[in-house]
Amino acid sequence: MAALSSYVTGSWHVPPDEGAPVHDAVTGEEVARVSSAGVDFRAALEYGRRTGGPALRELTFHQRAALLKSLASHLREHRDELYALSLRTGATLNDSRFDVDGGIGVLFSYSSKGRRELPNDTVHLDGGVEPLSKGGTFAGRHLHTSLRGVAVQINAFNFPVWGPLEKLAPAFVAGMPSLVKPAGQTAYVTARLVELIIASGILPEGALQLVCGSAGDLFEHLTEQDVVAFTGSASTAQKLRTHPVVAARSVRFNAEADSLNCSILGPDASRGSAEFDLFVEQLVTEMTVKAGQKCTAIRRAFVPAELLGDVAEAAAARLAEVTVGDPADPAVRMGPLASVGQREEVRRALKALIPAGTVVFGDPDRVEVIGADADRGAFVSPLLLRVDEADRPEPHEVEAFGPVSTLMPYTSAERAVELAARGQGSLVGSVVTGDRDFAREVVLGTAPWHGRLLVLSAESAKESTGHGSPLPALVHGGPGRAGGGEELGGVRGVLRHMNRTAVQASPSMLGAITGSWVPGGERTVTDVHPFRKHLEELRPGDTVVAGPRRVDLADIEHFAEFTGDTFYAHMDEEAAKANPFFDGRVAHGYLIVSLAAGLFVDPGPGPVLANYGLENLRFLTPVYPGDELTVTLTAKRIDPREGAPYGEVRWDADVTKQDGSSVAKYDVLTLVARRDG
Amino acid sequence: MAALSSYVTGSWHVPPDEGAPVHDAVTGEEVARVSSAGVDFRAALEYGRRTGGPALRELTFHQRAALLKSLASHLREHRDELYALSLRTGATLNDSRFDVDGGIGVLFSYSSKGRRELPNDTVHLDGGVEPLSKGGTFAGRHLHTSLRGVAVQINAFNFPVWGPLEKLAPAFVAGMPSLVKPAGQTAYVTARLVELIIASGILPEGALQLVCGSAGDLFEHLTEQDVVAFTGSASTAQKLRTHPVVAARSVRFNAEADSLNCSILGPDASRGSAEFDLFVEQLVTEMTVKAGQKCTAIRRAFVPAELLGDVAEAAAARLAEVTVGDPADPAVRMGPLASVGQREEVRRALKALIPAGTVVFGDPDRVEVIGADADRGAFVSPLLLRVDEADRPEPHEVEAFGPVSTLMPYTSAERAVELAARGQGSLVGSVVTGDRDFAREVVLGTAPWHGRLLVLSAESAKESTGHGSPLPALVHGGPGRAGGGEELGGVRGVLRHMNRTAVQASPSMLGAITGSWVPGGERTVTDVHPFRKHLEELRPGDTVVAGPRRVDLADIEHFAEFTGDTFYAHMDEEAAKANPFFDGRVAHGYLIVSLAAGLFVDPGPGPVLANYGLENLRFLTPVYPGDELTVTLTAKRIDPREGAPYGEVRWDADVTKQDGSSVAKYDVLTLVARRDG
Repeated sequence: MAALSSYVTGSWHVPPDEGAPVHDAVTGEEVARVSSAGVDFRAALEYGRRTGGPALRELTFHQRAALLKSLASHLREHRDELYALSLRTGATLNDSRFDVDGGIGVLFSYSSKGRRELPNDTVHLDGGVEPLSKGGTFAGRHLHTSLRGVAVQINAFNFPVWGPLEKLAPAFVAGMPSLVKPAGQTAYVTARLVELIIASGILPEGALQLVCGSAGDLFEHLTEQDVVAFTGSASTAQKLRTHPVVAARSVRFNAEADSLNCSILGPDASRGSAEFDLFVEQLVTEMTVKAGQKCTAIRRAFVPAELLGDVAEAAAARLAEVTVGDPADPAVRMGPLASVGQREEVRRALKALIPAGTVVFGDPDRVEVIGADADRGAFVSPLLLRVDEADRPEPHEVEAFGPVSTLMPYTSAERAVELAARGQGSLVGSVVTGDRDFAREVVLGTAPWHGRLLVLSAESAKESTGHGSPLPALVHGGPGRAGGGEELGGVRGVLRHMNRTAVQASPSMLGAITGSWVPGGERTVTDVHPFRKHLEELRPGDTVVAGPRRVDLADIEHFAEFTGDTFYAHMDEEAAKANPFFDGRVAHGYLIVSLAAGLFVDPGPGPVLANYGLENLRFLTPVYPGDELTVTLTAKRIDPREGAPYGEVRWDADVTKQDGSSVAKYDVLTLVARRDG
Repeated sequence: MAALSSYVTGSWHVPPDEGAPVHDAVTGEEVARVSSAGVDFRAALEYGRRTGGPALRELTFHQRAALLKSLASHLREHRDELYALSLRTGATLNDSRFDVDGGIGVLFSYSSKGRRELPNDTVHLDGGVEPLSKGGTFAGRHLHTSLRGVAVQINAFNFPVWGPLEKLAPAFVAGMPSLVKPAGQTAYVTARLVELIIASGILPEGALQLVCGSAGDLFEHLTEQDVVAFTGSASTAQKLRTHPVVAARSVRFNAEADSLNCSILGPDASRGSAEFDLFVEQLVTEMTVKAGQKCTAIRRAFVPAELLGDVAEAAAARLAEVTVGDPADPAVRMGPLASVGQREEVRRALKALIPAGTVVFGDPDRVEVIGADADRGAFVSPLLLRVDEADRPEPHEVEAFGPVSTLMPYTSAERAVELAARGQGSLVGSVVTGDRDFAREVVLGTAPWHGRLLVLSAESAKESTGHGSPLPALVHGGPGRAGGGEELGGVRGVLRHMNRTAVQASPSMLGAITGSWVPGGERTVTDVHPFRKHLEELRPGDTVVAGPRRVDLADIEHFAEFTGDTFYAHMDEEAAKANPFFDGRVAHGYLIVSLAAGLFVDPGPGPVLANYGLENLRFLTPVYPGDELTVTLTAKRIDPREGAPYGEVRWDADVTKQDGSSVAKYDVLTLVARRDG
């Protein structure tokens, strides 16, 4: 059997040697060979930097997002092939749905987030303008630009499709090329995934490379512009994180390591309650999905002391129904571990763990198997332990990366928080309760140790995505033992692949650099009303000044009567004077912005199609009867929309009164047609 | 002379040994001794975690911010003492203003940011609600909670006041206790600063500890909840970053290291231009302030090839005016380096650097000195080098941490970007130009290698804070050689001391946990209008539903006439139909929100004092003549204001029409009185 090819520097590289064999988790047969012999890692990184990076940076966030969507649709057409291949890793169809559909879902989600939450541009602004001077001639703003290196992605064996895709998607949207290194045990699934992606031709050349086999001298060639995202064991994370090149060049290193995640049953959830059943169901699911080979699985289950017996009994009963065997057999609920090596590791861990308590369910050394040879495949029984002395170190420190969990008692919310923290940092925790006070106390108390916390109750049970599922919109990672990293989280994950820079300049200069007009920057008032300009013609700074319009008491009274807003500050001089903010009757805020629109709007049909919203409206000074309003409306930002005959234009509105003071400031959001739309 | 005391576990610890001597930079006399002998680092960290942390977490962000303000005012009263002490470190009064006033300024700034940009609460929400289900029963949200450990702050010798304060302020606002370790050379200034702080009694016990001398076995006792913030050399950063405990427990490690920062003169800035003079002036300032001992100083100055001679000449002329000597002498512009050891290091670096080019100004071995003994003090001459071969490695790699800079030529914007990147990551860069296209190209091109970029032009020169000054509102740090860290940046710096957690739950549960009502969460409609409830009585979820109100064509026409907003979509049926978003004439968005207010407002005097703004207003469905509007207004978040008789209440407004579809959604911001105000 030939070793899997790697895809580097624009072509498929066939290893010159035999490589190391990888075995089918079910039958023990050789299924593939892996080797990175002959891969020039330095050249691969340079290729990513010189070819993939520039190609990606030619595209805007929206254009990259659109490619991800095409890619997701393309891969969806090839799901069945990936499912079939995954059977050999020990994954049931249900397991593969998590992996394959989950991975494709991440692409769709990043495509959508990229279009909705990032501009159609290559630079992302972070936060607002920071005034840095009294006179207003000097200001600051933060922006994110794409790192000029390669996103090196070292994946774990357990999710050969989701793993690479959840790392690729944010890097891709950020404009950074990826170099993917799958774990040997399941590399053949990832290799097929990458083949499908490359063959589709959807991604720009150089945006994705694949190395099957060892990482060789890859780390020697990293620079300060590269990013490493690692998923795997804490010990490997530690080794890579302290690599001399990583340390010397401050290479961004993100680790996601297995952790001793916990689930806590609320004191309200006695036997027979919905939450009791949800807790048991979730525990058994987390133990058995992917045969418990999930970084996010529940390793520690904390139960009110008085419910421990009940939970143990109910969970044992559910575990007894879990059929183990050939994942291709529809009657099988749990497949084997990914390799016999993994099984040996689990058994080693169980030797340390089991003496701390009593086995509620399972046998570390034998399991009944359906449709397969228990000796050849990496089968293991689900194993539930009960440790009554919750202070013992083993259940908080020893991780068996398989279908293994430990039940422990607790006596108060405070104690539950303390025990959860004993895991020294986890990817995820869950609280199963309908009691909001308990949930609040436990969530806020355990949050410093968790990347994600799920509260499961009858209210959310039907739609809850479950303890073990990282979601693209939410951060995935955790402090301490979980690796101290953060992946996903929507745009947050994109920004991990970009550099944040504070830029200081005059407002006009800052506007020119960021493409967003900055208050204090130059305004351009021309004869043509800016509402008569198409998207291509508008420039940040284009301005209309209109007014004044006098606001009389009659206007205020009329507006109050017409809208029904007869709030006393508008209608009752004495009461208004008693208000700490007003010296007498004031105009409605809604009247001010309505009159301002009346001043700045150019009424005839033209490029401005609609006002779709307002943002950051603040009323700054009261408007009294007799005050005269002027509005200055300035084009702030012009964002064409990909493939649409119009784009978004954000305007800065500043309503002032006769003494020059601002009475209201806000952003007006409009849709403006392209001339060539 | 007794060694400086450390302040640990609630008291001043006097070292049992003699300690290592520290010498006056000017006279060479012994000025202090430092030793951390006898400090129990494990106990100090535990004390911070058990005493300081809980005390700080009892306070809200606003309460912590208020304490910082008191502290800043207190320290301002003691500036002169700190200035005087700083003379012995070699700092002129001007240098000390950067250090002392700058540090106090950071406290004021964090106090202000904490009150304006964080809630009066202990939890900070990050981003909006993430819908996670179709039916709306399951949603997610990110929150930040205070880490439960200690912020260990290891400072450099060059800013003995600003350094500790710029690290303390964000940690303090985040609710994290600090343990400060100053560099030996100037520890006596920091020790006095900490004495002043402790004696003031302003900070809660345990919020600040001080260790003078070596860090001993401090790192052995770190946990996943601690944070290390280090400023100093890249080599020490590397050593600490790879400490086994830091790596194994994923301790957050933030490094800020010296970098080879550059300044680029624009091609527009020929001799005689304002920018030419600004560039030369800034270069000389950055070389000589703090005798060039700033991580942010300009080490590499890139000049258009044709201007290199002119710049060299002008800079040499300015440098010739720089008087070196006793910093206490008002005629002196530049003091000595912090120690003779530092001078030896600078001379060593110059041995490597000088052969790469020609010396434009200065002598590495001698300098004329005013009011001091040049042999006893750590005096050194400013030294400007010129390297015509800008591709030589030395100027991009060798850092002389003193009044040393190198001039190099460039030929195009692209080339300037490439040369800037040769520094492999910098804290700051500057571009001196009035040419906006050049500035845009260079800023966006060099941003991936920089934490901060300053554009200096005639427009901003008067108010610019300069190349070398980190500002509390902007991030300070940089990739690669600069350490890969980020400090300051307003709230960004606070959040580095908190853990971000994604919380998933039903909307009602999410609301209970975060204290912010979430769309889809339970609403409470009572007989009492929520506008009649005081701040203490209002609860998230309190709701008023009002309407319907029918909108007729006459209303639209009347509103158009009254406000002047006669936009065609409201007035002209045919033209409105031709608009891609409308089926005919539509109501004004401003009319919709005005009518909604007319529906939900309770008019009589009561606890609601004012509507001070709107946020996130989106018009979702057009309103046609005959449509009937209903508004649902729900209290979303209630934020009492410290020391004020009122607080802020944010309401969720959802305007729907007869078919139940939302026509507008937005947040209404109000001020509501306390009952006991």
